[in-house]
Amino acid sequence: MRFLDSSTPDFAAGFEAVLATANLSTESVREPVAAILADIRARGDAALCDYTARFDRLDLVPASLRIDAATIDAAIEEVAPALLDALDLAATRIETFHRAQLPADLELDDPAGLRLGMRWTPLDAVGLYVPGGKASYPSSVLMNAIPARVAGVSRVAMCVPSPDGALNPLVLAAARRAGVSEIYRIGGAQAIGALAFGTATIAPVDRIVGPGNAFVAEAKRQVFGHVGIDSVAGPSEVVVVADGGCDPRDVAIDLLAQAEHDEMARAILITDSRELADGVAAAVADELSRLPRTAIAGASWRDHGAIILVPTIMDAAALSDRLAPEHLQIMTADPRAFFGAIRHAGAAFLGRWCPEALGDYIAGPNHVLPTGGTARFASGLSVFDFLKRTTWIESSEAGLTAIGPQAVALARAEGLDAHAESIARRLSANAPRL
Amino acid sequence: MRFLDSSTPDFAAGFEAVLATANLSTESVREPVAAILADIRARGDAALCDYTARFDRLDLVPASLRIDAATIDAAIEEVAPALLDALDLAATRIETFHRAQLPADLELDDPAGLRLGMRWTPLDAVGLYVPGGKASYPSSVLMNAIPARVAGVSRVAMCVPSPDGALNPLVLAAARRAGVSEIYRIGGAQAIGALAFGTATIAPVDRIVGPGNAFVAEAKRQVFGHVGIDSVAGPSEVVVVADGGCDPRDVAIDLLAQAEHDEMARAILITDSRELADGVAAAVADELSRLPRTAIAGASWRDHGAIILVPTIMDAAALSDRLAPEHLQIMTADPRAFFGAIRHAGAAFLGRWCPEALGDYIAGPNHVLPTGGTARFASGLSVFDFLKRTTWIESSEAGLTAIGPQAVALARAEGLDAHAESIARRLSANAPRL
Repeated sequence: MRFLDSSTPDFAAGFEAVLATANLSTESVREPVAAILADIRARGDAALCDYTARFDRLDLVPASLRIDAATIDAAIEEVAPALLDALDLAATRIETFHRAQLPADLELDDPAGLRLGMRWTPLDAVGLYVPGGKASYPSSVLMNAIPARVAGVSRVAMCVPSPDGALNPLVLAAARRAGVSEIYRIGGAQAIGALAFGTATIAPVDRIVGPGNAFVAEAKRQVFGHVGIDSVAGPSEVVVVADGGCDPRDVAIDLLAQAEHDEMARAILITDSRELADGVAAAVADELSRLPRTAIAGASWRDHGAIILVPTIMDAAALSDRLAPEHLQIMTADPRAFFGAIRHAGAAFLGRWCPEALGDYIAGPNHVLPTGGTARFASGLSVFDFLKRTTWIESSEAGLTAIGPQAVALARAEGLDAHAESIARRLSANAPRL
Repeated sequence: MRFLDSSTPDFAAGFEAVLATANLSTESVREPVAAILADIRARGDAALCDYTARFDRLDLVPASLRIDAATIDAAIEEVAPALLDALDLAATRIETFHRAQLPADLELDDPAGLRLGMRWTPLDAVGLYVPGGKASYPSSVLMNAIPARVAGVSRVAMCVPSPDGALNPLVLAAARRAGVSEIYRIGGAQAIGALAFGTATIAPVDRIVGPGNAFVAEAKRQVFGHVGIDSVAGPSEVVVVADGGCDPRDVAIDLLAQAEHDEMARAILITDSRELADGVAAAVADELSRLPRTAIAGASWRDHGAIILVPTIMDAAALSDRLAPEHLQIMTADPRAFFGAIRHAGAAFLGRWCPEALGDYIAGPNHVLPTGGTARFASGLSVFDFLKRTTWIESSEAGLTAIGPQAVALARAEGLDAHAESIARRLSANAPRL
């Protein structure tokens, strides 16, 4: 863990080191991923079954690629009712929040006599990638699939690898609750290829979302343009801004909730209280000794954790903006005032009663958020990721007459005469042609 | 030009050929672009000046990278006042339309006692790439820079190469009118590198937009993730849906306005009138003989043009949706009804008095639009490209008590104990700790 005091001369250099983020490179798997994608494109289902046998030790035929309803039913039977209830509350709240995001169409009357507008329509089909094994999170299924369904996407096709045949029942329960249309027991670059290009069994989609390993991330990069993709997520991160009124044990466990994700996760405390800083450092060490994921959380905190001391709590705002964190917890006396001074953050959690985990699971806003400082220009997942806009212009002869001549002048200045002519000749039907 | 009749048995195969779009690969310039970007990152302004001397035959020092106000003033003096007026009308209308796009923040009261919200904020800084030479279009400067300024971006830095020192005065006039903050006389991958990573003279930006050649496109791909980029545009395309009531000469010139962009551009007519189909084919040949850009437009029409005959005009909607065209002109008796049946298009032009060129220059909606069928999942440039969202959650003790236990259950099921604990211990301060 790095301890920095913003009033010391070496602070700038230390803060630069905190800012430096790992550049996620998938360069090393570029060639094998390209080969897999080409093979899926050429051989379809047969290639899909071959790779699944090789990587997941699972023998499939095209008819067994898709997980049938009875298997899903049986899996859901295994889940404790209280857990299904929790999943349902989360899903309902996520639906409510994302429904409130839905934008309205635009239609403008124009003084020149035209009508102008913008219409939102959903994508036809979306692919959702869900990792297998330990990183197979039901909450991520809800967070990725529900915004698509709320946006009006009629077909959501999910791929989840099933190494040695193992499936996570709660993931299947989440998929059904979220309205996923189809679930396939495939993973890796081959699953991304199938979603992007389609096979005899799996129809192609228009956009692919969801996290994955380096092969999945590189495959998404390579199919981008052919279909849409979401951004490639880096390690998760939190900035906790806390003043002297906080319980250091609360702050410590919130930092560790971030650190337990993986060794590359970053948890950063910014405070104006030396006492809190010291108390949190001690509490983290204490909590770490008891956490089940102590090896992961400990490595994250040791290598990427930081505590930054600032003169006043409002000084934390500019530092936080330079980090542009994925998650920003604001545990101060007036969290709204602090949030008002923030320009860049994926998601903010206001108050001492609002640990980030509340947003990870149940509050309603999305937990798929921009990492690694990309909150400077990127946003969390939302209904906007599953909608597209068509602008439109409607003109009468009067409208064209009002603004057409200036368009003709600009087109001629750009040397695009057919552009100019397409307007000019409509303006005066009897005028000399080109 | 390909002629297809949807009632014939070979139509499906012919339409597949129309659907097949050139895959824009920048693979061949991957290595040289990577080398240029690394050099800009290492040597900054010095590298920038070296590449500009080599590629643009222009000797610069860091102080002359930026085009000064006096040079811009002098250039604008050269522009005809009528052209400046046309530029101003276009800019005003583009501003009005994009201002209407601005979204509202969201704040939700929650039955569980939390408050949830979503806040839109502008990016801090945007880079705008403008090609030099013949593809240096003032209209594109307006279309890229104005949405950024309307969104609230305070710094818009523009790069335009100046081969042998040549600059387009109308491009500089457009940049000033659009509120561009800084203009640099640099281009190519080196300009993208400077915008993404910054140099001593050019501060880095958060997102880069604007068209360019293969080097520029590949450089944007490579800096993506470090900064945001817009999508890589393919050849421009139009689908014109026209019924028997149209003048074939109007339709012909509209198709050629697309074809004159470049040899790879695609212009496609879909009609229910055999007479119109024949008339347009003849009129295109006739117009081509007189167009200044006849070589380009002729090659485009010959290699990528198509006329498709359908039984009824409403049958054109499904075919158009499969093409998901960048531009869709609807020249039918009831264009609104037809538009209502359309799901995928970048921009639509309704009525016989609404040639696409009106939207290219002056109507108000953006002319930077998704190409190559990507309108299935992508949208035209808008204020949304220059804004990002921060979602937020505010919770009290009561709010956490209402929904916290279900989050704890889900976190435990995912094996993330610190997540669970960060909520659980706040719920019962005196409960046993981990």
